[in-house]
Amino acid sequence: MGRVTVRRPIVTYKGRTSRSKVDALAAEEPLELRVGGKALAVTMRTPGHDVELAHGFLLSEGVIGGLEDVAVARFCEGTGPDGLNTYNVLDVALADGVAPPEAGVERNFYTTSSCGVCGKAALDAVKLKTRFSPAADPATVDVDVLCGLPDALRARQKVFASTGGLHAAGLFTASGESLVVREDVGRHNAVDKVLGWAVLNNRVPLTGTVLVVSGRASFELVQKAAMAGVPVLAAVSAPSSLAAELAEEQGVTLVGFLRGDSMNVYTGAGRVVA
Amino acid sequence: MGRVTVRRPIVTYKGRTSRSKVDALAAEEPLELRVGGKALAVTMRTPGHDVELAHGFLLSEGVIGGLEDVAVARFCEGTGPDGLNTYNVLDVALADGVAPPEAGVERNFYTTSSCGVCGKAALDAVKLKTRFSPAADPATVDVDVLCGLPDALRARQKVFASTGGLHAAGLFTASGESLVVREDVGRHNAVDKVLGWAVLNNRVPLTGTVLVVSGRASFELVQKAAMAGVPVLAAVSAPSSLAAELAEEQGVTLVGFLRGDSMNVYTGAGRVVA
Repeated sequence: MGRVTVRRPIVTYKGRTSRSKVDALAAEEPLELRVGGKALAVTMRTPGHDVELAHGFLLSEGVIGGLEDVAVARFCEGTGPDGLNTYNVLDVALADGVAPPEAGVERNFYTTSSCGVCGKAALDAVKLKTRFSPAADPATVDVDVLCGLPDALRARQKVFASTGGLHAAGLFTASGESLVVREDVGRHNAVDKVLGWAVLNNRVPLTGTVLVVSGRASFELVQKAAMAGVPVLAAVSAPSSLAAELAEEQGVTLVGFLRGDSMNVYTGAGRVVA
Repeated sequence: MGRVTVRRPIVTYKGRTSRSKVDALAAEEPLELRVGGKALAVTMRTPGHDVELAHGFLLSEGVIGGLEDVAVARFCEGTGPDGLNTYNVLDVALADGVAPPEAGVERNFYTTSSCGVCGKAALDAVKLKTRFSPAADPATVDVDVLCGLPDALRARQKVFASTGGLHAAGLFTASGESLVVREDVGRHNAVDKVLGWAVLNNRVPLTGTVLVVSGRASFELVQKAAMAGVPVLAAVSAPSSLAAELAEEQGVTLVGFLRGDSMNVYTGAGRVVA
């Protein structure tokens, strides 16, 4: 389970001069997520914190609303070519009375989409699933606290330093206290691990928190924040148009280009105070 | 179809001083890809070059091997809430005799995976689908040519300059001539658009070419390169462990951290010459 990096021999060039060395790469392996024994999704992720990843994924997709909706999560006994457990298949048994997900998460688009598929249908699909609207969350965050979060995130990125190859997501209180930081080759996985940590620690809905991500803010990341009741999502890089639209509709404060002492606030600017 | 950016009012902070302005965001919209009228996948992408995206996606997934496998690709007539065509549903009719894909591309993992799911199964799944092995491609690339490609890519990124929010992928000859550059909020979409351009221009397999990507190199991107017969994949950032393993198995030269006058060569170092 400690396979967060893999060492490989490489050739490195500086100008026209090459030399051989051994380099650490961020580990990537498929994780098959099953619910009640039935395959739901395969994601390429960095091994570790997989139970969190599963809980965060199921929360993001509206399958569970909290820890009470899960009976048990455990790795299957399947083995790889070497006869060892791959720890790449995780089965979640839902609690009694919790409806299993439809096969194919993307199906959510179709069931709400009378118009073919469009941005509006994507927004509506999230609206239908949200249990914890961040819209009414009275949290505010000081600009100086926000500006300090990327450094606080980077300081807690253990694997990035050795590989340069991992996205990070971190959850902070509105006063800047770090709650959890997770890294993964996939930025959606890093966020799922953070949100799964919150589920496992009974911290959902995540009122009064700030979710910080090391890269860009896509529609999918805003969806995850909204589904977990996170009022502020701050990204080091750019948001997309649909990320901003969804954040506005869900009452999420969306901050982008959070670098040094500057930032852009795309939605919910009232929560950012100077 | 010119919706590559969307303008929004934002609040921007420098220190504790804020001002309002209008900002351009990278457009993100869902694209539903159908084959023979049946929904295959939904991807969140930047609108534009969608026919390329569809061809590249189907090539990457082993559904088609070239232009002759497609009868016609066209947008469906579905309209959005405003009564206009969303241009977000694209239907591809395969040529006679071409087998339609299994529903759910992820199913490929299961059909080849007797051991649950593991990195080996993922590598094997690609091996089974590859039509054009890059392994025998005699192409070589000079280190100086490689070092010049990120700047050449950036110079052709039209939308990044205004939004900072797009990934880019570019195809170059081994001597550094630019063939095509595409941008997208999703890096896999940018690569699919480039490979789809190659399909539509009858350039597959892409022998003697270098595919350059603005971000990291994941398993999925190496898979796309291998499926199109691209011998060299160069990334500005880090590769993952499984990306390097797949590149080695498929005979793809994988270059990472291609910045300034330096780079790491993870696999197939014989194609890089100084």
